[in-house]
Amino acid sequence: MVTPLPSVERAHDRPSPSIEPLYQLMAADLERVNALIVSRMHSPVALIPQLAGHIVSAGGKRLRPLLTLGCSRLCGYRGHRHVAIAAVVEFIHTATLLHDDVVDASELRRGRDTANAVWGNKPAVLVGDFLFSRSFQLMVEDGSLRILEILSRAASVIAEGEVRQLMTANDTTTTEQAHLTVIEAKTAALFAAAARVGAVLAERPPDDELALERFGHNLGIAYQLVDDMLDFSAHQTELGKTVGDDFRDGKITLPIVIAFARGDSEERTFWRRTLEEGDQQPGDLDRALGILKRRGALAETLARARAYAAAAIDALDRFPDNPLRRALQEAAAFATERGF
Amino acid sequence: MVTPLPSVERAHDRPSPSIEPLYQLMAADLERVNALIVSRMHSPVALIPQLAGHIVSAGGKRLRPLLTLGCSRLCGYRGHRHVAIAAVVEFIHTATLLHDDVVDASELRRGRDTANAVWGNKPAVLVGDFLFSRSFQLMVEDGSLRILEILSRAASVIAEGEVRQLMTANDTTTTEQAHLTVIEAKTAALFAAAARVGAVLAERPPDDELALERFGHNLGIAYQLVDDMLDFSAHQTELGKTVGDDFRDGKITLPIVIAFARGDSEERTFWRRTLEEGDQQPGDLDRALGILKRRGALAETLARARAYAAAAIDALDRFPDNPLRRALQEAAAFATERGF
Repeated sequence: MVTPLPSVERAHDRPSPSIEPLYQLMAADLERVNALIVSRMHSPVALIPQLAGHIVSAGGKRLRPLLTLGCSRLCGYRGHRHVAIAAVVEFIHTATLLHDDVVDASELRRGRDTANAVWGNKPAVLVGDFLFSRSFQLMVEDGSLRILEILSRAASVIAEGEVRQLMTANDTTTTEQAHLTVIEAKTAALFAAAARVGAVLAERPPDDELALERFGHNLGIAYQLVDDMLDFSAHQTELGKTVGDDFRDGKITLPIVIAFARGDSEERTFWRRTLEEGDQQPGDLDRALGILKRRGALAETLARARAYAAAAIDALDRFPDNPLRRALQEAAAFATERGF
Repeated sequence: MVTPLPSVERAHDRPSPSIEPLYQLMAADLERVNALIVSRMHSPVALIPQLAGHIVSAGGKRLRPLLTLGCSRLCGYRGHRHVAIAAVVEFIHTATLLHDDVVDASELRRGRDTANAVWGNKPAVLVGDFLFSRSFQLMVEDGSLRILEILSRAASVIAEGEVRQLMTANDTTTTEQAHLTVIEAKTAALFAAAARVGAVLAERPPDDELALERFGHNLGIAYQLVDDMLDFSAHQTELGKTVGDDFRDGKITLPIVIAFARGDSEERTFWRRTLEEGDQQPGDLDRALGILKRRGALAETLARARAYAAAAIDALDRFPDNPLRRALQEAAAFATERGF
């Protein structure tokens, strides 16, 4: 029985930040986004809405579209186009998830209940393609070449980052910088684009666009680092994951990078055996958790994440102080204090 | 030793149509397309140009970009934008090929030398995504929302058609009409879009756009039908395929649909066993070839293809008679008379 690490200590002298205020302020808009997602993923080919729905309606937090909605309103946008663009962002995210879950034959044993595990690789790939194309059709209907530019660049950066990750996967000598480059591409790029298009919709000057991009970028990194930390922490059931999924997959995340850098030669041998060579024995996950704790790798990962979250919060300071700005900043603070 | 069927009889009283005149007229433009493809599939992530190059430079006939080049010039277009749009068309085609070759674990035994066989499913999917995103970036740089609309719709139709094909694969009761719907989506849609954007580039009226779309659509169907026929014919080495690949994969193509419809109950039992149940024994391919011949399935497929090619040729009649129009029409005639 694996004992996950207790959550890293949190500040208890003030109420925990929450993402709820942002959800509440955007509830009506988000409902319209959800309706649009359902209507635009429809196809006479039944497997498409069926498979896409498996992901899209699987209790996703809709974080990225929420950024688009919130940032456009923060910029004073009063129209309705943000609903379609938020749906675009979620479609791109979903397509990425579908393709990210495609596995090679040798990895099939993982057997997670992903779309590809249920329907096979090929439908998962093709439905991802459908959603991706559909997202571009929605953007074309919207008609903004600037938004098309920002989101097609993000999609390209994501794909590039995913390939880069494949090439550095299982490599325990990955540096923190190299790992950050992967996270910037595979997670932060879409967060950044989702926030930035809010300023484009509101026709705000470039400085506002760039401030929102910084907000999304830093929030995305913070979010991903916490995700990687939580993989080794308690509260995992809330993530729909079991403790140590990344470890079993041999994934090199920041906690591992830090523990490896701080480790002695015996520990490095352990990491190489379990992650590079994929030779894992019963008890190895417990040992990994012990090393991570001893080396302070989770606390350090959280500290890094908090610095990014703080940068995200700062990026919004140029906007007028109002409930929406405070809700977006609280959402950024929440990203590092969440237990799921 | 399997004896492939001899090529179906061809007319010998006039010189065979050729695609060469079209290649020659477009040679300079096509060279620029090839250069742009190489430069725009570059990435600091080495695996991307490496894997993409495996497909892009694998002696592809560049038929689709050739349609864009030829049709834009036919419409009197004198600028340079057609080069980038032709590259876009080839990128979309390449991404589709990469994703189409992704296999589920159970199919890995096929072991063809596809990108996924060399590098694995996951890189093939992600590099496809990269090319797909890159194609949209190129369109955004070009700046035509009409072209973005036409090609994003085509991409969406292709993905939908591929999923539809998965659902009807191995089903011997597929009707000719249902099969045609699959071909229209997975092949004809991109041919049609590739031709149509030529008129958009030249700012021609809608009737010209629709005529070129008809040209591309009918040519695409003719091309695919001949491809499916050739899978059972001689000259296969020129296709880089071995005879009966589709049969071994249990693919239902028009020759099979026709043979099944015309077959007796013993033959239908044979098709069901070999294609639906995937139970193939030594000698089955030879028996399949025998039935196809007896039922006239290849000749009938070719006759259908020729009707589509004729419709493609007719669609160009509204354009001024000049060497380029004749070259495009000859290319359409060539589609059904080619041996590879």
